[in-house]
Amino acid sequence: MIYLDNAATSHPKPESVYKRIDFVLRNASANPGRSGHRMAIEANRVIFEGRESIARLFNIRHPERIIFACNATAALNLALKGLLQPGDHAITSDMEHNSVVRPLKFLSQQGVNVHRAQASREGSLDPDEISSAITCETRLIAVTHASNVIGTITPIAEIIKAAHNKEVPVLIDAAQTAGAVPIDVEALDVDMLACPGHKGLFGPQGTGFLYVSPKINLNPTVFGGTGSRSDLDRMPDFLPDRYEAGTLNTPGIAGLGAGAEFIFSEGVGAVRMHEKHILSRLIDGLTRIPGVRVYGTGDIERRAAVVSFTIEGMDPAAIGDRLDTDFGIGVRVGIHCAPDAHKVIGSYPKGTVRMSPGYFTTPEDIDRAIEATGVIAADRENHRYIPVSSPQPAIPRG
Amino acid sequence: MIYLDNAATSHPKPESVYKRIDFVLRNASANPGRSGHRMAIEANRVIFEGRESIARLFNIRHPERIIFACNATAALNLALKGLLQPGDHAITSDMEHNSVVRPLKFLSQQGVNVHRAQASREGSLDPDEISSAITCETRLIAVTHASNVIGTITPIAEIIKAAHNKEVPVLIDAAQTAGAVPIDVEALDVDMLACPGHKGLFGPQGTGFLYVSPKINLNPTVFGGTGSRSDLDRMPDFLPDRYEAGTLNTPGIAGLGAGAEFIFSEGVGAVRMHEKHILSRLIDGLTRIPGVRVYGTGDIERRAAVVSFTIEGMDPAAIGDRLDTDFGIGVRVGIHCAPDAHKVIGSYPKGTVRMSPGYFTTPEDIDRAIEATGVIAADRENHRYIPVSSPQPAIPRG
Repeated sequence: MIYLDNAATSHPKPESVYKRIDFVLRNASANPGRSGHRMAIEANRVIFEGRESIARLFNIRHPERIIFACNATAALNLALKGLLQPGDHAITSDMEHNSVVRPLKFLSQQGVNVHRAQASREGSLDPDEISSAITCETRLIAVTHASNVIGTITPIAEIIKAAHNKEVPVLIDAAQTAGAVPIDVEALDVDMLACPGHKGLFGPQGTGFLYVSPKINLNPTVFGGTGSRSDLDRMPDFLPDRYEAGTLNTPGIAGLGAGAEFIFSEGVGAVRMHEKHILSRLIDGLTRIPGVRVYGTGDIERRAAVVSFTIEGMDPAAIGDRLDTDFGIGVRVGIHCAPDAHKVIGSYPKGTVRMSPGYFTTPEDIDRAIEATGVIAADRENHRYIPVSSPQPAIPRG
Repeated sequence: MIYLDNAATSHPKPESVYKRIDFVLRNASANPGRSGHRMAIEANRVIFEGRESIARLFNIRHPERIIFACNATAALNLALKGLLQPGDHAITSDMEHNSVVRPLKFLSQQGVNVHRAQASREGSLDPDEISSAITCETRLIAVTHASNVIGTITPIAEIIKAAHNKEVPVLIDAAQTAGAVPIDVEALDVDMLACPGHKGLFGPQGTGFLYVSPKINLNPTVFGGTGSRSDLDRMPDFLPDRYEAGTLNTPGIAGLGAGAEFIFSEGVGAVRMHEKHILSRLIDGLTRIPGVRVYGTGDIERRAAVVSFTIEGMDPAAIGDRLDTDFGIGVRVGIHCAPDAHKVIGSYPKGTVRMSPGYFTTPEDIDRAIEATGVIAADRENHRYIPVSSPQPAIPRG
């Protein structure tokens, strides 16, 4: 199949990822950080190297401040719930994924005041607008690095600068950019960075992490054994143990490390260049199809590899269904766990068809996806297609 | 090596577990529950079948009430923090792992009153004592099914009965028993069961689950995308989605499912019988060595496959080190994330050497472990061994 759902989970992974996971599962999956025998030490080393590989890729000076989590959602929950207290003010945007929206909603019920900065119709956030929303109670700004619906890249460097001028830290949700768009943690002076392992970083599902800068002190949100200071009835004070309760996913982290190494050796710049090339071709092709509407900015420099579109008069679910069934093309349709972003771009409640290519997507894959979309749109135009969601033939336009 | 650290993480896994994980990683690791294309549907099926396999093994009538978690610690955190509110009373024991101790300590700081039932020196908990600690504010009893330090099995059937007589639910921490000791959720009328995937169930690290009976209503503790009711800014009301935020560990759950199927086909009874046989041999052999003290009950029926021992006058760390270095035997030493259990049995603060065999441990492995321990104890006796923790030759006893 032609897999264009990399924004949900990347596929395929580099061969080295599969191999590393299998090797570690078979040979080094003792408990890391618990026991002292050779296989446990080997498991420890796997975890250590995973942290080192990620640190190198993101230019993180303190690898021990990379907290492994089972996905970006868990990382974001730790960042938000570990920092924000009742009475605090937090700024976010209306382009956020439910992994930020839902924890913030929960916190707002606990007395945290949440301000949502409005994005433009293209999904852009204005650093000045965010800065002007800062009050003396503002404890955090939490924004996505790129919309998971339309790919618009947030100007995080400018937002971080503006926020730091007022001594407010920034949490970056890098779900759509980690591994695919260069992020230099030290140069940007990132306070917190939440990343999934299973998307651009080519790790398996079940992995992710939160980077926490030395300036940030979070309360732990999950409590349990760490293999360290086991005499205490509270979490240890040092990182990463303070935030890593229970047995870590050693084989998963091994795969994540292999993914990070793969990207480091290819160069994030090369990944980004490939994705921009592919993205450009995709947007170009889709835009030319009569009846197709592509959302978001046409400026490739400000886009991650996510393209949302609709075909006039057609249910996105029906388009996705046909792309899969008739053309073997996998996409994601609907509102992509980000209802407000669809309200911003005007595609709520039915949502869009989202094509998200990746580093392994070829120009030929893109051409076939464009061609298939063209056929579906033409069939709709010529009344040859009955939408899945309608029991009656669709009424012709015009 | 001879791996006797199965209480931390089981090793090896059945070949089917390795194969299933690799297959799913390569062929079905799209995002489960998010997209509608064939690979996403396949990922969905993997998750569904994982739940079904676990349900069959534990006789769980409602598979949708199996909440996947990244480890037992996360499952226990959900159970405890999702249920207990300030002012509530909870009963636990002094045999618990830090995965129960630490969340309860956190909750006690939020106003939950925690009573700790005292275990006997053998680690036994008395259902009558627990029952008599119930007050009208008691909202939960949380106990381990078997001590991770000395293996003593808790009489959960009796505790559940006594608790239900007073309408109090019980949370079972099955970290040391899931997959190795039969647990019939429906027959026992279990309220909540927390299990790691990577121990007796033969799944990979990064997996685990909480079963929540229909009588229990938990508040979600992690918030984020579920792929369902994405229009809501709160978690959906239905299970399992209500408690499963973010992308699930599809390949891990595939491996966990394969592990559960392996056990189901062998029969938990057969696993238990093998482990009792091995355990008996181990305890017997260790007990005969002069200077060795084995902790816990000698009644194999009341023991999971965990054996703690010390050698008089020797640091457990030094014993573990020598077992690994000179004999290639992997064990875990220290206090095993359960400081209070060591206070109960009298081995605090240095702890014990813990040997935890598994289903793949052979009688020959056990014999070699006994022999090695005998050599170490004899060397100590004959002043041939300098403990690692001492810079000077050890002072001979007597």
